Amino acid sequence: MSAAENNKWTKLENRGITAAKGFQASGIQGGIKKGKKDLAVIYSETEAAAAGVFTLNLVQAAPVQLCKAHLENPVRALVVNSGNANACTGEQGMRDTQEMAGQTAAALNIAAGQVMVSSTGVIGVPMPMAKVITGIGKAVDSLGKGPEPDIASAEAIMTTDTVIKQAAYRCSLPEGEIHLAGIAKGSGMICPNMATMLAFLVTDAKIERPLLQELFAEAADKSFNSITVDGDTSTNDTALILANGAAGGSEITKGSAGLPLFKELLFEVCRELALKIVEDGEGLTKVITLNIKNAADEAGARIMARSVLNSPLVKTAFYGEDANWGRILAALGYAGVDFNPTLVDIYIGPYQVAAGGGSVPFSETDMKKVLQKRAVSVLIDLKIGSAEVTAWGTDMSHEYISINSDYRS
Amino acid sequence: MSAAENNKWTKLENRGITAAKGFQASGIQGGIKKGKKDLAVIYSETEAAAAGVFTLNLVQAAPVQLCKAHLENPVRALVVNSGNANACTGEQGMRDTQEMAGQTAAALNIAAGQVMVSSTGVIGVPMPMAKVITGIGKAVDSLGKGPEPDIASAEAIMTTDTVIKQAAYRCSLPEGEIHLAGIAKGSGMICPNMATMLAFLVTDAKIERPLLQELFAEAADKSFNSITVDGDTSTNDTALILANGAAGGSEITKGSAGLPLFKELLFEVCRELALKIVEDGEGLTKVITLNIKNAADEAGARIMARSVLNSPLVKTAFYGEDANWGRILAALGYAGVDFNPTLVDIYIGPYQVAAGGGSVPFSETDMKKVLQKRAVSVLIDLKIGSAEVTAWGTDMSHEYISINSDYRS
Repeated sequence: MSAAENNKWTKLENRGITAAKGFQASGIQGGIKKGKKDLAVIYSETEAAAAGVFTLNLVQAAPVQLCKAHLENPVRALVVNSGNANACTGEQGMRDTQEMAGQTAAALNIAAGQVMVSSTGVIGVPMPMAKVITGIGKAVDSLGKGPEPDIASAEAIMTTDTVIKQAAYRCSLPEGEIHLAGIAKGSGMICPNMATMLAFLVTDAKIERPLLQELFAEAADKSFNSITVDGDTSTNDTALILANGAAGGSEITKGSAGLPLFKELLFEVCRELALKIVEDGEGLTKVITLNIKNAADEAGARIMARSVLNSPLVKTAFYGEDANWGRILAALGYAGVDFNPTLVDIYIGPYQVAAGGGSVPFSETDMKKVLQKRAVSVLIDLKIGSAEVTAWGTDMSHEYISINSDYRS
Repeated sequence: MSAAENNKWTKLENRGITAAKGFQASGIQGGIKKGKKDLAVIYSETEAAAAGVFTLNLVQAAPVQLCKAHLENPVRALVVNSGNANACTGEQGMRDTQEMAGQTAAALNIAAGQVMVSSTGVIGVPMPMAKVITGIGKAVDSLGKGPEPDIASAEAIMTTDTVIKQAAYRCSLPEGEIHLAGIAKGSGMICPNMATMLAFLVTDAKIERPLLQELFAEAADKSFNSITVDGDTSTNDTALILANGAAGGSEITKGSAGLPLFKELLFEVCRELALKIVEDGEGLTKVITLNIKNAADEAGARIMARSVLNSPLVKTAFYGEDANWGRILAALGYAGVDFNPTLVDIYIGPYQVAAGGGSVPFSETDMKKVLQKRAVSVLIDLKIGSAEVTAWGTDMSHEYISINSDYRS
């Protein structure tokens, strides 16, 4: 699973955002949350091309709307707060997110249109703008000063996350040496809220926006959009990448020699951050890697994977360490995608549990050993086509219920 | 809520299937489950028109396929077993369900095509046919003999249900006095399985199959298809109605005077049985009645209702007695149905919690009193059309996780 063990690129351990040249970061306590870092700024010393993917929820938080509006601009900075999602906050929410961009721009002496904003936390509550504005000033002042700016920025975007999530890589392309780094948060929820997934990547590679958007959308689809903890799509989900070209090499273009490797690395970093989100999923005891092969097409297979990984019955079965392939087949059956149930083979770990949609004998003792592990793999062979997808999910535990039923306090 | 308190019809307390004239019932221990009733037979003394609605899951159990094939026949009997779902059992499963029809037919001296079969329980395991066949003989022998045939038949179809579910009414139509009665089971699961909802209604009214199917499909849509416990659609879900005309009145037809009242009663009985299923939902502490009004259309509103009631975040919030309208709005937002989030008003109990997609102040003390009750109502006003739907769901508790993660044993 680790991207470190190959000669294509070098993993930079314990490094995050500032591993990419020309990017600075900071994370500070702005008082939005009690006694915890809650405001991060990521700053590019030069103009960066931006690409992003956002929640498909019809209810979109104000900062998501702002990011979409600013996406085609040359971007210089990203300001992120935790503790308040600025969602379901109406026109005041739009004014507040615009003011966050404006204040960040003023402090950095850039244009407001060059600032991206992201928020995560409580919804339906107006932003505590006095604290936010003071915090932005403090965060901008801290750029390039803190002892561990990578960690500080990764900490400031956390909600109920239990660990920071960052990744950084160096890679030698024919176009020159580049870095790709990122931070992420999720799928924690904070009272009284919904899970929000945020991921921010930066690279010092030089690459134009349309190509960056194309590559990022594809990588996000196979990583961030292929994980699920509870199937609830947040109003704030955001994944952004900024490319500032500060590495100084030549441009990565559609036809350039380094494109395949850059694309592969981009997916690797997205996948690593996505898996870190799943690994920190609320109350999980297992991480389930689901592979669907020989599907009619990828889009359908992805819907089927989501149906299986979101099924409370499948999730509680894994929590109970029960090789309950019938629940898996049933969840495929109601996904709304056409297939032939009588062709389906299912494997849990190395053992086949269903053949042609019916049961096959397996050793309960061997299976118990597979299911007692934290990492469980499931393979579904649909035998109707040649498409293949991989998706990641979790089990559902008593702890999940506890976390999400806690009364607001 | 009770259908008893009006002068349109009379509720027959503690009565079930045999309240309708010309129907006999029995429920016996066939040894499919240990020490519990597991086989029921419902017998019509004369030919009955049958109508049914079935699971939309692509994976359909053998008895579901048999019912669909026999649906247009004049039906005389229904045999139901619990303890084994005969699902994911391949060609052997089809042969077994056909043999159940055949054995029942032989014992009753009717044709196999006049028998409906239904099964619920473990999936992926061959039917214990020796026990089933002996059980069918015993159940047919018991028809008209047991002290409480209604209760026996309602008990025999239970899986993890904690109470029997039956309803019976008498109603005077212009066509004559008729009875409508039914039994149901669900949404229990049995190891290692999925929830199955079964409902069997009988009436001694005289009504032709096409009209009965039309009326029953509509009533089922607004009742059985408007409840959800965990969003997992079983491979065995079945609702059937048999109408044998034994009341002796004139026929209920498209233009007949009694049609509106019969239609209303049919919905009432379906709703009562559906609510009994929800009330017995696994591990629930609350029953949520969700009303969506001023929607663009009914089909879309029903999808939105399902999205809200299936959301683990909404369900755990209610378990935590948290008036978390943001999770409700978010679940509407990802339902895939178009609406305008900035128009949405949300009420929990009598109190408004969101207006125009944003928060409105409410008393936490008053709200706490509303949310501490077992029955909670939610009203969503979309303000874009005039369609209205009501749906029922439950919260999600620690107990739900316990029930569904228990290892097969």
